[in-house]
Amino acid sequence: MDSPNVVSACVLIIGNEILSGRTQDLNLQYIAQTLGEQGVTVQEARVIPDDHDVIVDAVNYARASYDYVLTTGGIGPTHDDITAECIAKAFGVPLVNDPEIEQRIRAREAPPDVMKSRLLMARVPEGASLIENSTGGPQGFSMANVHVMAGIPAVLQAMLPNIEFSGGDTVKSRSVRAFMGESEIATQLGELQARMPSVDIGSYPFHREGIYGTTLVVRGTQLQEVESTVEEIRGLIRSRGSEPGEVDE
Amino acid sequence: MDSPNVVSACVLIIGNEILSGRTQDLNLQYIAQTLGEQGVTVQEARVIPDDHDVIVDAVNYARASYDYVLTTGGIGPTHDDITAECIAKAFGVPLVNDPEIEQRIRAREAPPDVMKSRLLMARVPEGASLIENSTGGPQGFSMANVHVMAGIPAVLQAMLPNIEFSGGDTVKSRSVRAFMGESEIATQLGELQARMPSVDIGSYPFHREGIYGTTLVVRGTQLQEVESTVEEIRGLIRSRGSEPGEVDE
Repeated sequence: MDSPNVVSACVLIIGNEILSGRTQDLNLQYIAQTLGEQGVTVQEARVIPDDHDVIVDAVNYARASYDYVLTTGGIGPTHDDITAECIAKAFGVPLVNDPEIEQRIRAREAPPDVMKSRLLMARVPEGASLIENSTGGPQGFSMANVHVMAGIPAVLQAMLPNIEFSGGDTVKSRSVRAFMGESEIATQLGELQARMPSVDIGSYPFHREGIYGTTLVVRGTQLQEVESTVEEIRGLIRSRGSEPGEVDE
Repeated sequence: MDSPNVVSACVLIIGNEILSGRTQDLNLQYIAQTLGEQGVTVQEARVIPDDHDVIVDAVNYARASYDYVLTTGGIGPTHDDITAECIAKAFGVPLVNDPEIEQRIRAREAPPDVMKSRLLMARVPEGASLIENSTGGPQGFSMANVHVMAGIPAVLQAMLPNIEFSGGDTVKSRSVRAFMGESEIATQLGELQARMPSVDIGSYPFHREGIYGTTLVVRGTQLQEVESTVEEIRGLIRSRGSEPGEVDE
């Protein structure tokens, strides 16, 4: 999709539990939608294991390749929570105890070994700033263009709105439904896409309650172009003797 | 996780609709679980856009780095279905019309432009073998260690069981629940993990119906080690004055 001002992001989903299939990731969709509304386009996502070297390499690749990097997972108090130390390593800075988090953790009394585990969550890379989080869960932080969040969806959703992004042009999206197979208008759609390189036309077959069809999605930064392209698609559908259907958006 | 015989896989999820947040991916979890049962471990997943160069590079990276590569999406008849041509490019072979698919497509009459679009689905990289698929949906295929499947979950789920994998040792998993925060036993868990490098201990906080707790998951190829580790974790939980809970698996 051509766009005059594209601001990009990469999402790193950190966690063996996603790769093993134990846990269904629900964060990518939420992040993509939330960033999209602010003019930031997620261009890549990677699911990677709780492996020190893999995480460090992925963070360094992503922060050099995209405007923003968002990570999910691995910021709790256990041995498999290694994201903070990996971010520090990627940036070549030490992990330091943040006095604000430490004070908050020490305010809740606990046996020495429990306190020691909790205090692991006070460690952030030197120079990081904290991400506000009303849930009282583990602490997220930002380091340059890398934003480090929890993996639990409810906690992540309390963090993400508190991060500021300088977005580019927002992508507008309009959809229309065709009650026919993808092939019926595929040739004409391909020609339309070639004629309208500044929008992105997606074709997605569906099958719902016994009805087969295709949802056509047009995305672009210029609303007028998006809407005129959808209007052309409606015409294509009608030329096949069918009435275009509306899509709840 | 140390393992005597690890067979690895990488999943490439191809599609702008996943990256934009329009569509929730449901395939990674299904693939990871299905492969896991056959002794194949998904070690990485990438979500990438419908972009020719990005797909070619990702395929070439993945097929050189992992035993198996599984791709989802982009094998329909429209202009944004470019997976087959990208696989051909990655392998340096031409796209050719498969006579079996072509015959099947031509058996259903259609106007010339519709037939032209449908016939795009007959193209596979030279040397590919077909993946059986009872849904009659778009054709998946295998090219060396790369298996190319549809993005629609129902179609993917009809394809995946028809692919043969030579798996390694299967990973066994056992879980136990602690009705306490992660920090309560984090120090001891870390020590246990250090003592048992051949299993992988994961700690996952949960909050369900007003109850907070932590699910501890032990994974490994040797069932006896997995079970004895879980037994040690039960002991840790009891040493904190709490009764371990069962997990439905």
